[in-house]
Amino acid sequence: MKVSIIGATGYAGEELLRILAGHPAAEVVAITSESQTGENIENIYSHFTRFYNKKLASLKDLPDIAAASDAVFIALPHGHAMEAGKQIVAHGAKVIDIGADYRFRDPAVYEKWYKVPHTHADSGAVYGLTELYRDKVRAATIVANPGCYTTVSILAVAPLLKYGLVDPATIIVDAKSGISGAGRSLGLNYHLGEAYDNLRAYGIANHRHTPEIEQALSDVAGQEVVISFTPHLIPMVRGILSTCYATLKAGVAAEAVDAAYAGMYGDEYFIRLRGRGAYPATKETRGSNFCDIGWHIDPRTGRVVTVATIDNLVKGAAGQAVQNLNVMFGLDERTGLTQAPLYP
Amino acid sequence: MKVSIIGATGYAGEELLRILAGHPAAEVVAITSESQTGENIENIYSHFTRFYNKKLASLKDLPDIAAASDAVFIALPHGHAMEAGKQIVAHGAKVIDIGADYRFRDPAVYEKWYKVPHTHADSGAVYGLTELYRDKVRAATIVANPGCYTTVSILAVAPLLKYGLVDPATIIVDAKSGISGAGRSLGLNYHLGEAYDNLRAYGIANHRHTPEIEQALSDVAGQEVVISFTPHLIPMVRGILSTCYATLKAGVAAEAVDAAYAGMYGDEYFIRLRGRGAYPATKETRGSNFCDIGWHIDPRTGRVVTVATIDNLVKGAAGQAVQNLNVMFGLDERTGLTQAPLYP
Amino acid sequence: MKVSIIGATGYAGEELLRILAGHPAAEVVAITSESQTGENIENIYSHFTRFYNKKLASLKDLPDIAAASDAVFIALPHGHAMEAGKQIVAHGAKVIDIGADYRFRDPAVYEKWYKVPHTHADSGAVYGLTELYRDKVRAATIVANPGCYTTVSILAVAPLLKYGLVDPATIIVDAKSGISGAGRSLGLNYHLGEAYDNLRAYGIANHRHTPEIEQALSDVAGQEVVISFTPHLIPMVRGILSTCYATLKAGVAAEAVDAAYAGMYGDEYFIRLRGRGAYPATKETRGSNFCDIGWHIDPRTGRVVTVATIDNLVKGAAGQAVQNLNVMFGLDERTGLTQAPLYP
Amino acid sequence: MKVSIIGATGYAGEELLRILAGHPAAEVVAITSESQTGENIENIYSHFTRFYNKKLASLKDLPDIAAASDAVFIALPHGHAMEAGKQIVAHGAKVIDIGADYRFRDPAVYEKWYKVPHTHADSGAVYGLTELYRDKVRAATIVANPGCYTTVSILAVAPLLKYGLVDPATIIVDAKSGISGAGRSLGLNYHLGEAYDNLRAYGIANHRHTPEIEQALSDVAGQEVVISFTPHLIPMVRGILSTCYATLKAGVAAEAVDAAYAGMYGDEYFIRLRGRGAYPATKETRGSNFCDIGWHIDPRTGRVVTVATIDNLVKGAAGQAVQNLNVMFGLDERTGLTQAPLYP
Repeated sequence: MKVSIIGATGYAGEELLRILAGHPAAEVVAITSESQTGENIENIYSHFTRFYNKKLASLKDLPDIAAASDAVFIALPHGHAMEAGKQIVAHGAKVIDIGADYRFRDPAVYEKWYKVPHTHADSGAVYGLTELYRDKVRAATIVANPGCYTTVSILAVAPLLKYGLVDPATIIVDAKSGISGAGRSLGLNYHLGEAYDNLRAYGIANHRHTPEIEQALSDVAGQEVVISFTPHLIPMVRGILSTCYATLKAGVAAEAVDAAYAGMYGDEYFIRLRGRGAYPATKETRGSNFCDIGWHIDPRTGRVVTVATIDNLVKGAAGQAVQNLNVMFGLDERTGLTQAPLYP
Repeated sequence: MKVSIIGATGYAGEELLRILAGHPAAEVVAITSESQTGENIENIYSHFTRFYNKKLASLKDLPDIAAASDAVFIALPHGHAMEAGKQIVAHGAKVIDIGADYRFRDPAVYEKWYKVPHTHADSGAVYGLTELYRDKVRAATIVANPGCYTTVSILAVAPLLKYGLVDPATIIVDAKSGISGAGRSLGLNYHLGEAYDNLRAYGIANHRHTPEIEQALSDVAGQEVVISFTPHLIPMVRGILSTCYATLKAGVAAEAVDAAYAGMYGDEYFIRLRGRGAYPATKETRGSNFCDIGWHIDPRTGRVVTVATIDNLVKGAAGQAVQNLNVMFGLDERTGLTQAPLYP
Repeated sequence: MKVSIIGATGYAGEELLRILAGHPAAEVVAITSESQTGENIENIYSHFTRFYNKKLASLKDLPDIAAASDAVFIALPHGHAMEAGKQIVAHGAKVIDIGADYRFRDPAVYEKWYKVPHTHADSGAVYGLTELYRDKVRAATIVANPGCYTTVSILAVAPLLKYGLVDPATIIVDAKSGISGAGRSLGLNYHLGEAYDNLRAYGIANHRHTPEIEQALSDVAGQEVVISFTPHLIPMVRGILSTCYATLKAGVAAEAVDAAYAGMYGDEYFIRLRGRGAYPATKETRGSNFCDIGWHIDPRTGRVVTVATIDNLVKGAAGQAVQNLNVMFGLDERTGLTQAPLYP
Repeated sequence: MKVSIIGATGYAGEELLRILAGHPAAEVVAITSESQTGENIENIYSHFTRFYNKKLASLKDLPDIAAASDAVFIALPHGHAMEAGKQIVAHGAKVIDIGADYRFRDPAVYEKWYKVPHTHADSGAVYGLTELYRDKVRAATIVANPGCYTTVSILAVAPLLKYGLVDPATIIVDAKSGISGAGRSLGLNYHLGEAYDNLRAYGIANHRHTPEIEQALSDVAGQEVVISFTPHLIPMVRGILSTCYATLKAGVAAEAVDAAYAGMYGDEYFIRLRGRGAYPATKETRGSNFCDIGWHIDPRTGRVVTVATIDNLVKGAAGQAVQNLNVMFGLDERTGLTQAPLYP
């Protein structure tokens, strides 16, 4: 397979390059950057010496790039993938968009939360949370790769809704992310002097990943789900941990919760169930495509509390993108994704 | 005032020493440690050179220490303050216990959560969350200094209950703490190799600060309050941030929430209200006795989300202990606590 | 004393505000910022609530500010202090410049290393490494506050040269600094995603603090001293540690080294000698104006290795500036600088 | 190949497991731990779920383990490998010892620095700094894997000595290491509360890696080399950076230094030369077996300053051990070691 990356110098693009360097069936033929066109990626990311010695092309080269590629990853800021997507598909390549442009079935939701007109409403794009939408991904031409907060939060809560164990109106997701989720661009909140030894909440009940979580959870629940979602910035680089709260329906036993997680994920390679009373730490997934999940039943309050972790740059971005690539092209979905986590 | 510290080598004891070094009306006359008796504190904490050149005594010296002191701070593991407290009071000094032994009005609650018999049930101890129980603290002989998670969580939620704005059955506190909350003792979870660049939840719905938060919130609400409480370990040293969720009663306007916080805390020096839509970061309180609070009203879910931060070693331990000391002895409660936070 | 700060929103300016908030004899009358003129400092640094409620003026207001001040601190990028300094002096106030403009006796050295013309060569400025130049500071109108790397490196090595114990041609200073030394401005090297869990050298043998160290060490040695200086960026916020190497002259005993440090610094409050074989850690000085020094004699190589630490924002910038202010105005030089370090 | 690991629960053992999980020609048949015998490694390191589901054996099982293995890695504290090594060799397996026991040609040097008698002086062990001793490693039965500080420091300085460019008496190595170099055992210096946001030197001129560096540099120089070596503890997990100083012999041009590095390492896959004036950062090697090297010539002092970085757990321990395994068994030495570094 020949693949290309549009927007290769951000952290998602960089992580795609890292993973693809070890993928036995994919070759990177082109990479682009608008701000550093013409530069060698090895000069931007010195750690890629021995892996990539390749110059950055530009979006202007997209027709040639698409023609030379079987699949193109787009890692651009939201609003920029739709025109690129149209061009790529027109030249016969498949698209995996790491950004938000293709994630919503209803363009009005996208336009409301992202304040940008949707110009590719008939794209036929499929939402690529692989474990939930695998069959659709298999047949897709355009896959919308889920957001980082959304991947881990949906995976954490979905079994509780699928098996009807909780009241959908009571779901609260309190999420904590490392700094890399904000990308490589500069900002005072990501300056080490400000962010180190520090902790803050932001975007409470306003974060754009909220409607994306709701869309998927509503699919699973078969009814509209509205949640509270709070993101926090943690002084670390990689990793997200979502702590999810929901009120159990009357009479639901702890064993039913255990069975729900096992029933939905028992055969999933990339989901590692810790079980009841055992909670994952983010670093246990670092550099890997795993999502680790543990949960607790609190009889005092009647709530279930689920804790789930991922590496936001892998299962939350580039890793799931490669997982989707594998599914779209009929490969074992683990191909290129079998490195053990880097711990400690 | 002459004061002493029983258990001076842990982080709470150390922080008391730091604060008292700048207190214009208190003199430290004795400090103790069972594991390092006879050592000079300056050799254990090199940063105290120029501030303390004093040997550590032992619990065996408690009668003499109590007799020479107006007040004694106890910073021992739970279960060890009760016998010490009896002795100190018998020698005429007042007690401020940083630990949990005196925090519960009902000894059965203490015994259930801490698995230790309570041997000083008639102590007359007062719970020392200063802003809520100031008048009782003023008259107390023994003050139970609140826990770190509890201080910030109670302060965050109390106005919502005091003014009857939320359903008490819906309160969820998701708390995040730096490592120093676990003290200076060794453990794999606090090893930098394990804890750095990492994030974990622990003690979900089982943490011993839960009943303490519930006791105070029940006082404020005038009815029994049961909450969900989840602590997390953050890769930083100082600081706690509690994110608190509650469902607003029907018809409660955002302005009523603003008014509740202003009404309860408008005159409190150590509580800094950020207001609606503005959220504090932990480092903004570092080294100080402040509790910073911001909140958000989410019309989509009908919930209020409050974020509050403290320095766990100051307002969550030693600083509030000194604040209580000041109140007990009729001083301005800010005495010795007016340093600006250390930022960045 | 009425003091003002030109350039109050960077980390040096912020730290001046923090220290001055606790200074019993200084009142901040004006603060400026060119990029945030008109803003309230409390909105830029939320931790200053309860301490400062003051709007930022502009350099345009300098004549009025100078006229209303007894002393003015300048915390501007190099090249901008000279014109400001002239104006301030003309209005009768004293100047303490945190930047580099007044640090060199020979303007040609400044112009060579900083690539900026020197326009105030007749300023009569005094180099304000207080422990070495205290008498000159006492009489000065303009004090050039030393750089952060330079303060700790000069203090570490000076006794060895003063007492003629080492060969001046063999001095190597390997220095390690937290990120705050680079200020609050944005840059990829200070982005937490890049700098966290990472370590790099930079500016080897080219750093602008090199000639400043050499100027002071040459004064002490009574001969020209040329050194190797290597700075490193450490994933922490505050603190510098300099590891200094020099070859002992033949026959110099370890006790002579001990005596040199004691002889030069035995009466200095802000220099804490750990002695031979005991080495300070940066956090032991955090938030304080101390410089901690330890050393080792290696008979295998005939070298002395000295390790010294400071808080770069305090003794390396704002704290020493206040120390100089105290000296210039005849106060006890410890005034406002007696807080214990914030540890852990 | 069948391999085993004696002492699999420390960081070096864990890292061997991580790397071997991706090695196409090695199978882990046995792992041991004395403190956790009988435990499943997956319960100790949760991140190994899906990779290892294997119980820890004990040293008592060593004969069986050796008989079942082609090679055995030893990752025990020093002093414990010699008896194990004898047994393993007696059962026909090869040995790669991560510890210090076999590193010195002269047992007296070992006994002097490690205070332990050497009981296997006729082992025929070969020092396994692969790039310098590859031919000997190829034929070895026992390979002594170099220390972490030593690997990076020797690689940094060797070309300068090999080509006779510097005065061997002037070599100073100032090294900085992440915490993982001290292993997973508990200690106050590795407690996050103490080590985070902090920096210290330790073991100045006394560290046990000093004679090991000197042994290899003496080999390269063809004369006895004595160095100054200072280790520092950096608040990060992985990575070492060595800053090395040496005085150039008269008349040595910068180009000669460039040529020395290129001449010695131009064909080495795992050594990436950044060249003159470009310096590596530790994270650029994280998780990989690379050693990155840059240097600077300072005409003011006549010194060359070389900066080199490795991941201490990979090239400084487990990675180089696998590199040696590959060499000993005739494989391409890159086998299993071709993952790109994990950045950011």
